[in-house]
Amino acid sequence: MLKLFYATGACSLAPHIALEEVGATYEAVRVNMKDGEQRKPEYLKINPKGRVPALLTDRGVLTENPAILAYIAQSFPDANLAPTGDAFAFAEMQAFNIFLTSSVHLTFTHAFRPERFGEGEAAAAAMRAKVPISLTEYFALIEERLSDGRSWVHGETFSISDPYLFVFSSWLQRGSFVDPERIPQVLAHRARVAARPAVRQVLAREGA
Amino acid sequence: MLKLFYATGACSLAPHIALEEVGATYEAVRVNMKDGEQRKPEYLKINPKGRVPALLTDRGVLTENPAILAYIAQSFPDANLAPTGDAFAFAEMQAFNIFLTSSVHLTFTHAFRPERFGEGEAAAAAMRAKVPISLTEYFALIEERLSDGRSWVHGETFSISDPYLFVFSSWLQRGSFVDPERIPQVLAHRARVAARPAVRQVLAREGA
Repeated sequence: MLKLFYATGACSLAPHIALEEVGATYEAVRVNMKDGEQRKPEYLKINPKGRVPALLTDRGVLTENPAILAYIAQSFPDANLAPTGDAFAFAEMQAFNIFLTSSVHLTFTHAFRPERFGEGEAAAAAMRAKVPISLTEYFALIEERLSDGRSWVHGETFSISDPYLFVFSSWLQRGSFVDPERIPQVLAHRARVAARPAVRQVLAREGA
Repeated sequence: MLKLFYATGACSLAPHIALEEVGATYEAVRVNMKDGEQRKPEYLKINPKGRVPALLTDRGVLTENPAILAYIAQSFPDANLAPTGDAFAFAEMQAFNIFLTSSVHLTFTHAFRPERFGEGEAAAAAMRAKVPISLTEYFALIEERLSDGRSWVHGETFSISDPYLFVFSSWLQRGSFVDPERIPQVLAHRARVAARPAVRQVLAREGA
């Protein structure tokens, strides 16, 4: 059975939603990051990087959100969460997801945990000052993609990119990062994702 | 025809090598980052993110290294650069590549261009101080993976992960980031990649 290691409020929400959407049989295991459980030996045996999400499969552990999300989509093809038979469309989807990982998520990390990148209050303040600038730029690119009236990130079909974007559009509520008036389509997308039954169920389970 | 937009010394070296390894018919277009060409309107039409690599295909443009590398592997299956028919093995490879993008590459960026994450010399100094600590941790994980005597990142078959790791093991030479004595397998891997005819040809072309 698949076992997802997640933390409340973390980006592991995306594969949690994806597993629920595809109707997988899985166990969701909460990692208590406030107690530093992700850095304890027991969890490091599962993911030596000390992060969530991690997906335990019968072949071993997978890490990194875009890889986990693609694996879920490929393992449950009937749910049609990724165009796995079309190399270009699949790469385009992966590119979007990797952009979320390496640009959007990493920028939020500079706001939430600046000490990961540099010690001291002066450095933290300098990093926090840059976050709204970078996020405004990144969300402008996402807003533009959504502004042709599409319902979901890649068109009219819900995909693995939608819960993943939902993680970060939700994180926007944690601070004054991006002027909401600049991203009406992103906010409408966030509301559409939040209204899905699978998403409501997972949010209730995570206690978010 | 495929067209790869690259910059000398950038991570675009990885797909450049991959295209050469698979024997693709492609054009390599140099983007002069020293002159800020990646931020000029002409290039932003190709990649609005203003970064390399970008791969122009007959279906459109792809960005983000792990997505481009997987696309090259999937488009040239005879070259066997990725286990495209095995969802778990493919996800494991993608996870490795995404770790290089979001952890290893992004850490180097804090050393090379700290102003991207925070203004001022104090912030830059704090970020630079953290880089060797993070890179030592990340390369320890890579060293451990290689220390079962395997020739390549995923075993005895050269894959898209090998030129991608080569980019960052080469960047280690740009500063005192990781004690070489801690990463003998990484350095042996770097030498093995550097000795491949396709790699020598691409390095000569890039003038690196």
